[in-house]
Amino acid sequence: MISPDSGGSPGERELVRHIRGRLTAAPAALIVGPGDDAAVIVPERGALQVLTTDAVVEGIHFDRRFSTLADVGYKALAVNVSDLVAMGGTPQFALLSLILPEGTSLADLDALLDGLLEMAAAARVACVGGNISRSPGPLIVDVTVTGSVRPRRLLTRGGGRPGDQLFVTGSIGGAAAGLDWLRQREFQLSAEATEPQESMDGCALRHRRPEPRTRFGMLLGRNKAASACMDLSDGLADAVRQVAEASGTGALVEAASLPTDPAAAAWWRSRGNDPVVAALAGGDDYELLFAVPNKFRGRMRAVAREARGLTFTRIGELTADRSVVVRRDGKDEALPEGFEHFG
Amino acid sequence: MISPDSGGSPGERELVRHIRGRLTAAPAALIVGPGDDAAVIVPERGALQVLTTDAVVEGIHFDRRFSTLADVGYKALAVNVSDLVAMGGTPQFALLSLILPEGTSLADLDALLDGLLEMAAAARVACVGGNISRSPGPLIVDVTVTGSVRPRRLLTRGGGRPGDQLFVTGSIGGAAAGLDWLRQREFQLSAEATEPQESMDGCALRHRRPEPRTRFGMLLGRNKAASACMDLSDGLADAVRQVAEASGTGALVEAASLPTDPAAAAWWRSRGNDPVVAALAGGDDYELLFAVPNKFRGRMRAVAREARGLTFTRIGELTADRSVVVRRDGKDEALPEGFEHFG
Repeated sequence: MISPDSGGSPGERELVRHIRGRLTAAPAALIVGPGDDAAVIVPERGALQVLTTDAVVEGIHFDRRFSTLADVGYKALAVNVSDLVAMGGTPQFALLSLILPEGTSLADLDALLDGLLEMAAAARVACVGGNISRSPGPLIVDVTVTGSVRPRRLLTRGGGRPGDQLFVTGSIGGAAAGLDWLRQREFQLSAEATEPQESMDGCALRHRRPEPRTRFGMLLGRNKAASACMDLSDGLADAVRQVAEASGTGALVEAASLPTDPAAAAWWRSRGNDPVVAALAGGDDYELLFAVPNKFRGRMRAVAREARGLTFTRIGELTADRSVVVRRDGKDEALPEGFEHFG
Repeated sequence: MISPDSGGSPGERELVRHIRGRLTAAPAALIVGPGDDAAVIVPERGALQVLTTDAVVEGIHFDRRFSTLADVGYKALAVNVSDLVAMGGTPQFALLSLILPEGTSLADLDALLDGLLEMAAAARVACVGGNISRSPGPLIVDVTVTGSVRPRRLLTRGGGRPGDQLFVTGSIGGAAAGLDWLRQREFQLSAEATEPQESMDGCALRHRRPEPRTRFGMLLGRNKAASACMDLSDGLADAVRQVAEASGTGALVEAASLPTDPAAAAWWRSRGNDPVVAALAGGDDYELLFAVPNKFRGRMRAVAREARGLTFTRIGELTADRSVVVRRDGKDEALPEGFEHFG
């Protein structure tokens, strides 16, 4: 905290004490944890360090009608873990910057921590410090995650070459369809429910609690199978464009091969939208897009053997021609617009 | 960015491109800079890594009537640098998380960056990544700074022992008095100006642009002169209490020896406030409080020789008795309440 934040119940002091009380795990590499001016850790010998930060903002990235505070805490950490994983890195430490509206109760904070610490346990990340400020407006959970990567396992966006095959893990389009479904349901409470509600619960869960592909990213790095990699935070179209641009290539995506979530596709059709465009443009899936040189097909078989059921699908390839297109019924179209990430 | 943030002018894409264009310095230790999923650096061999995060929130930590956007950018980084310095660390890398209200222009962003990059140059910190999100409310600049510290130079809050002398750098109370002056001036625009305006400009500057004691912290660490150290982000009373608590001691502060800023003292007297209480309770000064064992007095002389004019003042000592008091006219009183920092 920067300047004396007065008042509020419970006080900032009490919230801080409460958080510290819940941070029990202290890895051996942690020299100074919460409660000093800064955290101090021992960097891993021979490894590079990976650093990322990402915020979830009430009213922009989440809506309390659709996400519980536990969901918000879970997602705030998950999206950062996903960024580390997309670099081939192993997430290790998190700093939590909480910007809390007046009237945030200890129960609210506990709910937020429940979700955040659930993700931390799953990703083996230790929360080593942070900051609490009051907010005159929205609730914001801003998280920084650091981790390590062996130099030879580092996966950037820029290592792809023309002819490399493009793959994506799992399925796409679920999170965006889930959010759209939650919104429609909210605004049509009194109308009849005509949609296949049950099948959309899975999509809604992908919006509320994205699963970073921690194990798969680690396998890609360890097997040195990919030439480039990034996560789908801002949608597949954006990711393909970013990898192509950073690699100095173009890209061709085959619409027929996209692993679109079936419930999401049905949802968009029922809403009169094009499921292919929706799947390409929709963000928040946190799958991995990666490029594989043809000579590394054997390495990908090794990854597949260890992937514990997480599928991955070939969706196209990087091209020498710098254009970025989706091929559909034999016709090439420009990819839908995506969104850009700062770092 | 986490989910597709649509619209706005200029778009997030353009803001991102603009920021990247201004980040020219790329130190040798930076392997991957802005534009990938995460930044990648080479940790310093044999050093520990120090990590901290701190946010400045519009309406809580700054008011656009009193601080320019350049001031806000400057301060957002300065307060983090101060935390690193208080650990004896050398700040190296920053991640910027910007939460920007609708309608933030490129000129606004430029002003913010002007101040932030001015501080970055002064502290030799490279901005290596970050995140931009829209805000439905206030402007928030949330910064993470990492750096390195040699294990033997690490300064925690908890190393003090009874009998260690307490010192503080520079002067205290200026920032809080400066903010109070700015507020009074704003609310009494039509009334006659009765106060010594000129002398308060320096106090206002301390609120708007705090100077982290980078060189002094480095000297304390290098000379191994201090047993404990922290910065005064939340005021001297808070800092004394934190150092005593972490060190398992009490503390005695002598009111007569406090290096209160003379303009600040005059200001508080003119407002009918007790200048001693105001100087103890007021935050935002970013001086360093540190404890020095008596046997290290020689080392402090070495620090003084190299401090380039930055003074430091003995204000009391750590005690075996666990109480934390201020001695005033021979009478011991409890320290005014302070505010707590998360990590």
